[in-house]
Amino acid sequence: MKKIGLLGSTGSIGVQTLNIIRELPNQFSVKYLSAHDNVKLLVEQSKEFKPDIICIVNESHVEEAKQELKQYNIEILHGINGLNEISKFNNIDIALNAIVGSAGMRSTYNIVSSNIDLALANKESLVMAGKLIMDKVNKSKSNIFPVDSEHSAIWQCLVGENIDEVEKIILTGSGGPFRQLPLNEFKNVTLNDALNHPNWEMGKKISIDSATMMNKGLEFIEACWLFNMNYKMIDIIVHPQSIIHSMVEFVDGSVKAQLGLPNMTIPIQYAMTYPHHISNNTEKIKLSKIKDLTFEEPDLTKFPCIKLAYEAQKEGGTYPTVLNIANDLAVEAFINNEIQFLDIYKLINIALDKHNSMDNFDLDVIDQIYSTTFNFMKEQIKCLH
Amino acid sequence: MKKIGLLGSTGSIGVQTLNIIRELPNQFSVKYLSAHDNVKLLVEQSKEFKPDIICIVNESHVEEAKQELKQYNIEILHGINGLNEISKFNNIDIALNAIVGSAGMRSTYNIVSSNIDLALANKESLVMAGKLIMDKVNKSKSNIFPVDSEHSAIWQCLVGENIDEVEKIILTGSGGPFRQLPLNEFKNVTLNDALNHPNWEMGKKISIDSATMMNKGLEFIEACWLFNMNYKMIDIIVHPQSIIHSMVEFVDGSVKAQLGLPNMTIPIQYAMTYPHHISNNTEKIKLSKIKDLTFEEPDLTKFPCIKLAYEAQKEGGTYPTVLNIANDLAVEAFINNEIQFLDIYKLINIALDKHNSMDNFDLDVIDQIYSTTFNFMKEQIKCLH
Repeated sequence: MKKIGLLGSTGSIGVQTLNIIRELPNQFSVKYLSAHDNVKLLVEQSKEFKPDIICIVNESHVEEAKQELKQYNIEILHGINGLNEISKFNNIDIALNAIVGSAGMRSTYNIVSSNIDLALANKESLVMAGKLIMDKVNKSKSNIFPVDSEHSAIWQCLVGENIDEVEKIILTGSGGPFRQLPLNEFKNVTLNDALNHPNWEMGKKISIDSATMMNKGLEFIEACWLFNMNYKMIDIIVHPQSIIHSMVEFVDGSVKAQLGLPNMTIPIQYAMTYPHHISNNTEKIKLSKIKDLTFEEPDLTKFPCIKLAYEAQKEGGTYPTVLNIANDLAVEAFINNEIQFLDIYKLINIALDKHNSMDNFDLDVIDQIYSTTFNFMKEQIKCLH
Repeated sequence: MKKIGLLGSTGSIGVQTLNIIRELPNQFSVKYLSAHDNVKLLVEQSKEFKPDIICIVNESHVEEAKQELKQYNIEILHGINGLNEISKFNNIDIALNAIVGSAGMRSTYNIVSSNIDLALANKESLVMAGKLIMDKVNKSKSNIFPVDSEHSAIWQCLVGENIDEVEKIILTGSGGPFRQLPLNEFKNVTLNDALNHPNWEMGKKISIDSATMMNKGLEFIEACWLFNMNYKMIDIIVHPQSIIHSMVEFVDGSVKAQLGLPNMTIPIQYAMTYPHHISNNTEKIKLSKIKDLTFEEPDLTKFPCIKLAYEAQKEGGTYPTVLNIANDLAVEAFINNEIQFLDIYKLINIALDKHNSMDNFDLDVIDQIYSTTFNFMKEQIKCLH
């Protein structure tokens, strides 16, 4: 039985992870859970899965958690310090980091610094601190098992293969809800339009990232780090049906792809059961029912965020860090109705222009960049009003 | 440098194999070649690749070969005995069997009995004598590396995976030239219609098999033996573009596929370079150019040969042997304008009905079945006139 720690248990990926664990009761025992705000669901999950420790990051909910769980033998941590502590807990076999956005980065670093295998759903970690994290991974006993469907696909295609024989990685993306929207209508896009993804049910942050296609940009950067690839070796292709989750082309021209229905059960479960595939009740794909898989080049005029990500990774240093932080904050501002859809790109672009990149940096530098970018973005958002 | 023996060097696969070897001169040296009839090309190939031994099966060409190659230090064998001898030659690393039809079966058996790895392009071997051959493989140091694009795809999808975690194999087929032909027009099909495959340039036998879709039936049986799968675990799906060459579904619902342009360079080369992918000049796939991959169920009313193969494998024993021999002879008769297109199915069906299957059999029994089926088919073909 694998001992699992789960960060971000009340988000979309966290809830799906616990659904999988519920269906495979002999495979996993839950050792810890963490949530940011949703104390009600965290308490409910704690009663069902009986972890040793939980952490509620928003400290205003601590008393409620303590009250609800007083009959249970569960240690309750809180705040950023609590999250730091729980993510260093090493009496587990694998940690799954499903924290949303930049906030997940330090937990990723803590987990790989503790020689624990990490199932990584937080793509922002590697975008912000790819070099720092992968250096740690290479020096530790940790492995990173990707949870994102695209990276899981690439990883599955690479099983048993030699990374030196890879010609390129082909990252697929649905194109999001605005793939067919004319460029001149982008200015009228509302929050509801942007949240309405054609294939995937996801959290808000990733739905907006998918609408701007920054999601593909972040995945591109994450893939560079995860698979130790030069940015030139990763192509992005639009595949509206989201059935082929990504592909690997080898030097002889052979291409491997991983396919599945667009739900996260397979990639989450595989990250937890690797190197094994374990039988489950998820709906199976039937290609003669789906009938048609289509492919097209991404439209970089309509989705310039992809270009920003490409340029940031090409330039390197702390540009991807700023890209990610600025995107987090711009998306948050869009979700809070503080800015327009097209402002997301504009703000990130300005933040990158303003930034002086550094080649050598550590987590403290990233924290400083976070503060600087945070203040800069707040000002810029004000200016837009 | 790998030492290679090549049987059937003047056929479509043989010629393509030598093209690959020519492009990768530091990887391979050719130790033997064999051909059935085409002595001119065999002589030319011998002058270029300088094998130690060659075999010309049709004995009427022996003198021509000897004359042409008298300046060369090449041993020249001939006839079925020569083929038997050359296929037991064991000072090689790998043998590629590209003989067409039932005639390739004994060579397959000889190669795996000689502890030599076999790149197998002759699907008829395993259809006729799957149990005998795989028993030999399991007791010897030989491995069979499939060359057929579909089996190569399955094999590539299984690299690094555990065969016990496979839910099913999904064999793709283009549907051949008559996928869209109405059922009532099948009776008018000519030899030229049937030879005109939409995606693949292939030899005559396999082109006709593709037109009847018996090809998919034979591949289905071959896959059962190669991957040790129950017939229920193999699905056939029609994919007219021939880009996805086959797929493997694992028990968790994850599906892996192997893709490439419809040419044989990748599967031939991979069988020779396994476990490595080696860089080559073959045209690479670009999905945004191909745009569309479609899928549909095979139409078993139009292509009843698939059902025959399915039933033969289900019943087991020597039914698949007869299926294959009867198909070989019917296709030959069709190519020689002795029968109509629809007679191919009818004749195989009659041959199977007539046959009394045996559960225990050896190569001699298969030879007897060949004679019996040969005589029976000749009679039946006469009756059709």
